[in-house]
Amino acid sequence: MEFDLARLTPKERYKLLSSTVTPRPIALISTIDTNGVLNAAPFSFFNVFAEDPATCVIGLARHDDGSKRDTARLIEEQGEFVVNMVDMDIVDRMNICAIDFEPGVDEFERAGFTPAPSRLVAPPRIAESPVSLECRRTVTLQLSKSRDLVVAEILTMHARDGLIDPDRLYLDGEKYRPVGRLYADLYATVDDTFSKRRWQPDEWEEAQEDLARSLGAGAAGGS
Amino acid sequence: MEFDLARLTPKERYKLLSSTVTPRPIALISTIDTNGVLNAAPFSFFNVFAEDPATCVIGLARHDDGSKRDTARLIEEQGEFVVNMVDMDIVDRMNICAIDFEPGVDEFERAGFTPAPSRLVAPPRIAESPVSLECRRTVTLQLSKSRDLVVAEILTMHARDGLIDPDRLYLDGEKYRPVGRLYADLYATVDDTFSKRRWQPDEWEEAQEDLARSLGAGAAGGS
Repeated sequence: MEFDLARLTPKERYKLLSSTVTPRPIALISTIDTNGVLNAAPFSFFNVFAEDPATCVIGLARHDDGSKRDTARLIEEQGEFVVNMVDMDIVDRMNICAIDFEPGVDEFERAGFTPAPSRLVAPPRIAESPVSLECRRTVTLQLSKSRDLVVAEILTMHARDGLIDPDRLYLDGEKYRPVGRLYADLYATVDDTFSKRRWQPDEWEEAQEDLARSLGAGAAGGS
Repeated sequence: MEFDLARLTPKERYKLLSSTVTPRPIALISTIDTNGVLNAAPFSFFNVFAEDPATCVIGLARHDDGSKRDTARLIEEQGEFVVNMVDMDIVDRMNICAIDFEPGVDEFERAGFTPAPSRLVAPPRIAESPVSLECRRTVTLQLSKSRDLVVAEILTMHARDGLIDPDRLYLDGEKYRPVGRLYADLYATVDDTFSKRRWQPDEWEEAQEDLARSLGAGAAGGS
């Protein structure tokens, strides 16, 4: 079954793409204006894209009249923001930050989040977040009159104590419970995980040959 | 605890970013060369970013010597590719496509995937994939000598029969089991989902007042 995106409205396209390209990581983005008013809003049109340079990308939608929402406007003006990852402990407070408050409302205060100073950028991180990434805009691509793509360098990372081994940089997966975005009102946990071995080419060839032999032996035994 | 990315090697940065920015959606990308040789490889530095225009972004790493891998080279040359989403049914075959085969190896054949013709682009989609997106490169940003960011328009979508209601465009979440990427050998299902109501500003204010009143009543009752 084909859905020709060119024949659908943007709203219909959003429904199809946001429900099928899942699960998406969530960036609860904190920004600050020149008067020191804080802002925080969640985005799942977001991901990490490189480590050299460390790069993330965010997709930002404007208001229907083409004016920019708080996060987009503050990234445009200040060029700096913090990506705060969302785990099960703070998902209800993230959901408060998703409310379409009037511009200028401090979502930290509404959601009960504590601002912690960043080291390299002006906006504070969210102290309650398990992992925060201090970011600086590299370039913004205007995709249309209503959509912008922000490419940013990730400058430094903060992690909750005990989450990452500082020597080996291993994450403790038992302690990190990030939330994934699905669609509509739905989210997913990462509670149900599984492992797939990453094969080397020669290992895989050998395993295939072993499999073929054992299938052959099974067939012979059964005849 | 802070991890200063500027002081870490790219490999160390990769470890930190890929383990914490999760769960990531997976694009099993199919491409084709001018001789008709097929290529398929999975990427989780990927997401959808807008619906107007319908846009996805992919992060591509080059070989250590700076030469481009098959997918990057074919997108550079042809400008067209298909994003095939990965569900539990095809995750083992996706894992075969992740093997670092020699250039020119047909991963469709190795993994046992069936190529199905696309309508608007040259590379075929994977018939066994639940959802496929035909894409055309808009612009490629070279981030460094070893990393490229491909921004592409999503032209049309194919979905397995019965997955999406063609009239209302609702996805049947019971039938769609996409796999999320975590880190190292780990993946996550979307089996454990939960719902968070999206509040309107006035509804939330009212709910807060109700909560304050009930907490007040509770305290009075207990005194």
